[in-house]
Amino acid sequence: MARTPQPISGFPEWLPAVRLEELRWIDAIRATFERYGYGSIETPAVEELDSLLAKGETDKEIYTVTRLQGDADASEARLGLHYDLTVPLARYVAQHYNELEFPFKRHQVQKVWRGERPQEGRYREFLQCDIDVIDRDELPLEYDVEMPVVLHEALTGLGIPPFRIQLSNRKLLHGFLQELGIPNPVPVARILDKVDKVGLDGIHSMLLQHGLKDPIARRCMTLGSIKTDDESFADQVRELASSTTPNEMLVKGIDELAFVIRSVNDLRPGAAVVDLSIARGLDYYTGTVYEMRLADFEGLGSICSGGRYDDLAGSFINRRLPGTGISLGLTRLFAKLVAEGLIPSERSSPADVLVVLPSEERRADALAAAAALRERGLNVDSYLKPAKLGKQLQYASRLGIPHVWFPPFEDGRPHEVKDMASGDQAEADPASWRPA
Amino acid sequence: MARTPQPISGFPEWLPAVRLEELRWIDAIRATFERYGYGSIETPAVEELDSLLAKGETDKEIYTVTRLQGDADASEARLGLHYDLTVPLARYVAQHYNELEFPFKRHQVQKVWRGERPQEGRYREFLQCDIDVIDRDELPLEYDVEMPVVLHEALTGLGIPPFRIQLSNRKLLHGFLQELGIPNPVPVARILDKVDKVGLDGIHSMLLQHGLKDPIARRCMTLGSIKTDDESFADQVRELASSTTPNEMLVKGIDELAFVIRSVNDLRPGAAVVDLSIARGLDYYTGTVYEMRLADFEGLGSICSGGRYDDLAGSFINRRLPGTGISLGLTRLFAKLVAEGLIPSERSSPADVLVVLPSEERRADALAAAAALRERGLNVDSYLKPAKLGKQLQYASRLGIPHVWFPPFEDGRPHEVKDMASGDQAEADPASWRPA
Repeated sequence: MARTPQPISGFPEWLPAVRLEELRWIDAIRATFERYGYGSIETPAVEELDSLLAKGETDKEIYTVTRLQGDADASEARLGLHYDLTVPLARYVAQHYNELEFPFKRHQVQKVWRGERPQEGRYREFLQCDIDVIDRDELPLEYDVEMPVVLHEALTGLGIPPFRIQLSNRKLLHGFLQELGIPNPVPVARILDKVDKVGLDGIHSMLLQHGLKDPIARRCMTLGSIKTDDESFADQVRELASSTTPNEMLVKGIDELAFVIRSVNDLRPGAAVVDLSIARGLDYYTGTVYEMRLADFEGLGSICSGGRYDDLAGSFINRRLPGTGISLGLTRLFAKLVAEGLIPSERSSPADVLVVLPSEERRADALAAAAALRERGLNVDSYLKPAKLGKQLQYASRLGIPHVWFPPFEDGRPHEVKDMASGDQAEADPASWRPA
Repeated sequence: MARTPQPISGFPEWLPAVRLEELRWIDAIRATFERYGYGSIETPAVEELDSLLAKGETDKEIYTVTRLQGDADASEARLGLHYDLTVPLARYVAQHYNELEFPFKRHQVQKVWRGERPQEGRYREFLQCDIDVIDRDELPLEYDVEMPVVLHEALTGLGIPPFRIQLSNRKLLHGFLQELGIPNPVPVARILDKVDKVGLDGIHSMLLQHGLKDPIARRCMTLGSIKTDDESFADQVRELASSTTPNEMLVKGIDELAFVIRSVNDLRPGAAVVDLSIARGLDYYTGTVYEMRLADFEGLGSICSGGRYDDLAGSFINRRLPGTGISLGLTRLFAKLVAEGLIPSERSSPADVLVVLPSEERRADALAAAAALRERGLNVDSYLKPAKLGKQLQYASRLGIPHVWFPPFEDGRPHEVKDMASGDQAEADPASWRPA
């Protein structure tokens, strides 16, 4: 073939230095999930197409999977790559219902695939990091509080520019729309959700086109402009609804959202904000909804989504299984920071030390030194070709390996270790040396 | 829909307890890879079909990927799911050639997909754990030694029943077949490689069918029966070849294999064994080859494969880029041990502690205790519904959470912690308590 391969559009791939940092993120995020008691599950990359098409806003994004030289095997299910981790979770809970403990808390860190046209922030393959809790019959609102608290903690310390998790509530939105005399709120909520894509003017004309009168459309848009750090959104909503006896759904939505923002503020001040522009296009959310944006990169859109769903697993099993969850679009966030030069890339090796091989005669000493250092848990790369020392030092330097180890040049002489940052070189014992 | 979903044949999925153990394996394996300086890369799940079909023994196992409602977009590449991690590595090295340091060492832990008919030990989706080293122009044989050493160390301590890595050498095999007057050794090597599937009698008749005379066929089979712990295979091979001046390839193969077994025995006694029945079907191997079997479960077949390839990345780029690598079929091994009841499944939560919520009034104390314990790095599940205590204890017990934390029932009284294994309950301070 011998033509240089080209990247496949929409399928990101990192060089080792960037991947090292991505792994550090994944490890840190998982550690936080586990610190809150969320165990891992993994589901297959594929689901039956019927499952994938049962929920979700669109079917055009699905990749189907077919054997290149498949038999005409009628028993073979039609399969598609999962486009999120929520539908697989619902299927998993339904399938393993009798083997799971409830409340069922799980985290899931896996690739998902969508056949979208690739553009900035949109990938065809990307990594999602999800937590969800599902319980039987009833799930306390306190779990809606836990989602943003855990996710915010998971992302803290990774060097991400300022971000806050945005909270809204589907009951509030639907109740408000009912208050305005809009009997079927879902299509209107979907329009409001497109503000990122089409802007306020776009929303306005879509609402008019949908048949709303201008003053009604403007009140919808005013609702979407409400953003508060605390419960003060509640009075603004009540005033805008201008009803002395608001409907039950609106009251419940306001109460839930007030509880969630108050509780998040108690547990993790500043982690979240109420933002009523958040609607979430997917129609399975029934209460709290989440999104997240980077303050410095609003144009990137939401890098996190989630919310309360009361009937998702129920589409696979005849049980009421309410759940709540939050999902981080890690690739979208991470790739943006890579593009902005905000991801460090000095190191591309996990090694703490490179043991050089000055000459063939010193091979046994070099291997023994490497083994002694590894024995004590250090990550050690060992140069196995007796190349020129300059070349070996350059290799360490280019990979960002912070220390280079020299086995003794003559028997009986001590080992030496060089600190690549300072250039200092000193005697060291492989049985006791530790990096500073 | 409301019909219970069924598993998709060939796509394994674990319950949380088993997944917890699988994650422990993956973490331990990765830690060993990193301890030897192998950094991580990930490649997309898909490659261009042309790349996938360029190498490898068969094309019928490939899953193609198509957008369900794709445009008739001629520019869209034909894509397939990768069926191993070696072809993607070769493509990666060719594509990023100018941005990588050499020798390029990487590990890769990813799912791969093959459209095979599912059966025991054969999955359509499975996890592979690979390490490879690729260098320019020349790669010392010492890296062929490092592969089984690292893999053996990675698998030690996981509770796997006895295993040894089997070594052979393609030069030895091809040179030997040439010595017998077989001009094109590849098809014969492929027949010998099928001993797992068709048995010795099967091999025998296939060799005869291929046109070999019976005594020649028998000598091929005798070669395949040679198994030694050390270099003593060399004399047996020379005797069987019964040539006073064996061809260069045979001599080189014997020397290489003798070097590798001797060196592995030096570094990690007992990790490997010479087994000349190993041929490896894939035709890109050019020297050392590896397989691995569990002594107690021979019928499972090989759970590890790899070897030296001198021209794999070269099929994408006009450079000589020799490499060597080893690949663990984690799912095949792990799933077998699950089926045999050899994987512990007492714990299905990562939590060290469950903080119970005895009543709504104690919620703030319970949350504060959980936060204090997490602050110190403990994994803490927090029961957020004020259910009956018995139910909460049962939850901890069923998930295998080893400790249950009771926030004080009245202000000023101490916290208590219960050891679920012994049943002991004692006062404890969330700011200082540690599990035993």
